[in-house]
Amino acid sequence: MTSIKSLEARIAQLEDELKEEKHKTKSARQKISQMSSEVVDSNPYSRLMALKRMGIVENYEKIRDYTVAVVGIGGVGSVAAEMLTRCGIGKLLLFDYDKVELANMNRLFFQPHQAGLSKVEAAERTLREINPDVEFETYNYNITTLENFKHFMERLCNGSLQGDLPIDLVLCCVDNYEARMAINTACNEVGQQWFESGVSENAVSGHIQYINPGETACFACAPPLVVASNIDEKTLKKDGVCAASLPTTMGIVSALLVQNTLKLLLKFGKVSHYVGYNAMEDFFPTMSMKPNQECDDRYCVKQQLLYQERVVTTCEQGPVSDATDEVVHEENDWGISLVDETSEEVLHAVDGGIVPDLVEGVRLAYTKPVTNTQEGESIEETEQSLEELMAQMKGI
Amino acid sequence: MTSIKSLEARIAQLEDELKEEKHKTKSARQKISQMSSEVVDSNPYSRLMALKRMGIVENYEKIRDYTVAVVGIGGVGSVAAEMLTRCGIGKLLLFDYDKVELANMNRLFFQPHQAGLSKVEAAERTLREINPDVEFETYNYNITTLENFKHFMERLCNGSLQGDLPIDLVLCCVDNYEARMAINTACNEVGQQWFESGVSENAVSGHIQYINPGETACFACAPPLVVASNIDEKTLKKDGVCAASLPTTMGIVSALLVQNTLKLLLKFGKVSHYVGYNAMEDFFPTMSMKPNQECDDRYCVKQQLLYQERVVTTCEQGPVSDATDEVVHEENDWGISLVDETSEEVLHAVDGGIVPDLVEGVRLAYTKPVTNTQEGESIEETEQSLEELMAQMKGI
Repeated sequence: MTSIKSLEARIAQLEDELKEEKHKTKSARQKISQMSSEVVDSNPYSRLMALKRMGIVENYEKIRDYTVAVVGIGGVGSVAAEMLTRCGIGKLLLFDYDKVELANMNRLFFQPHQAGLSKVEAAERTLREINPDVEFETYNYNITTLENFKHFMERLCNGSLQGDLPIDLVLCCVDNYEARMAINTACNEVGQQWFESGVSENAVSGHIQYINPGETACFACAPPLVVASNIDEKTLKKDGVCAASLPTTMGIVSALLVQNTLKLLLKFGKVSHYVGYNAMEDFFPTMSMKPNQECDDRYCVKQQLLYQERVVTTCEQGPVSDATDEVVHEENDWGISLVDETSEEVLHAVDGGIVPDLVEGVRLAYTKPVTNTQEGESIEETEQSLEELMAQMKGI
Repeated sequence: MTSIKSLEARIAQLEDELKEEKHKTKSARQKISQMSSEVVDSNPYSRLMALKRMGIVENYEKIRDYTVAVVGIGGVGSVAAEMLTRCGIGKLLLFDYDKVELANMNRLFFQPHQAGLSKVEAAERTLREINPDVEFETYNYNITTLENFKHFMERLCNGSLQGDLPIDLVLCCVDNYEARMAINTACNEVGQQWFESGVSENAVSGHIQYINPGETACFACAPPLVVASNIDEKTLKKDGVCAASLPTTMGIVSALLVQNTLKLLLKFGKVSHYVGYNAMEDFFPTMSMKPNQECDDRYCVKQQLLYQERVVTTCEQGPVSDATDEVVHEENDWGISLVDETSEEVLHAVDGGIVPDLVEGVRLAYTKPVTNTQEGESIEETEQSLEELMAQMKGI
């Protein structure tokens, strides 16, 4: 009988210990139905809601309505997903076919005990612990195979939190050319806005690029050269070499990606069309690229026409400036009036070439002459083709 | 008897579950005695050692010799500590007196189940799991009280991995003026190089600043205006309001901090003396500030003299350029020869005013006239006092 009692006591003890251990890996907070601005230590949203009082964001709670897909849950994607989760995004769709390895531990997010788990599964577990208010869909597959690609496109069109509606944004955080092209193809077809991102294989540069089909250059308009590295990590590994990576560079790229996502979704500040990062010099070039009218992707060309139609409609419906009559351009293909205080979008639509949209005080370092350009010409002095610009970017 | 057997089976099952749960919260890898470049999934250092093959860092393993103190384990400090841990830093000293709260969950690193733990304790646990090769010292105290300040200074002088030797760098990640001044005072007295960092209370700007006593402006030379916010979060909370914060802005500031730490310690790229971040525009101004010869901190003035002596010694011992004789400046207080291809350090030492050390293509947006400056004058046209520069910075 003592034996049974002692066994029962041992069971009770083990159950307690297990409960305690399980608590450590589970969320220590309940779901919160409504975001509050109350300044108490127990409110996980107080510092975000403060953005309203500070005059930065008009309606922060709106973030709960948005759905974002993150493709590639590696050094950039995992951190981007974590930032969005902590910001209280409505829903995340996570796509990756890879497993967590100890070799990933030089980047943020994953922990050694997760080695062997699929990246999407490990990420979902951690993110749910961090914020149980966020909804998740995870797909442990490669989006570039035909079957998966179809499913991926279906989720872009129907994955919204509101059900069977298109999602709001795609963040491309993959490490290879094929996956970038797959995202580009899907987004062009359905007219889905997205952000491209990348880090170089020497780990000391990176970039983000905003792609709104029809409005800005797509990944097929402005080919691989914008991306510092197109070498698939898997290919490199076969030869016994691997790309270098740093949590710092990847952290900056993730943060630029999510900061611009917040600006886009919550309508504050200026959404950058392209931000580069050169770690050696702490140099961050920015620019804008118009779509290529002869882009190989026919859906890109179609979206360009649709975008022009939308711009024309907006202009015709909007208030007309006094100056409108004076400045109609004769060689204007789209019939849009360019006025002095025109919006950036209209400027992009009417100008024929690439518009370097630089923040005041920043110049691009693209003045180096290239073989097929006249010596000494800079991007500001000449209307260059996309190919020439890309060739020059190689030299950064 | 069946009863005892079933109880024993239950015990075995619970023990297994407990083992599995405990495994989740413990490091899944053993210590590694030597960093390897081998490209295998199980090597947590392969992607960092690849920096050598990529020609970025000459001797990456050197990182294991360095000790860095992180003061303030909040939204910036915790992420900076994690990045350094994942990069395989030798030793970290962590200082903070605060507890983890749910209100911190909008920033990276801490998790809800850690609420109530001291920040340094929670951080050490997580960081040890991530990388058991790093050594830690943690101090759960406020460095600004007299007793703690003395101990803090003692650890700067004797906290090295090599034992009883000065540490290599201090990262200031605090949120208030007093703590920044305490770090400044300590570092000036012992000649310790450090990085200052800060984020604004509206969460959309931040900066990092490198302070090498005697060489660059200290925190007392270039007072509070460089820091976007000097309002202690505790003070704000008393009034029922709090500063806003974003994981994105804090992530960028942490990453800039650690990237420049890596560049400084591992000798690659250019260590920035100041990088600002304006999230609304994705604008990153950079500059350099000379120390103020009339700084209120007498140790700063003393370090300036020591620094000049070191520069003179280095110049006299170094190879002499042909041009040396031609360009000796008559009004040169330090008796240093300025040569055409002089080093940046020497330039800083001989020039009397503030030297804006801008990366090519970047200009500071400080051309706005201020009340006590002639209209239209920019920093490049006039030799301004530190006070004037600071006043102009307010207008960014």
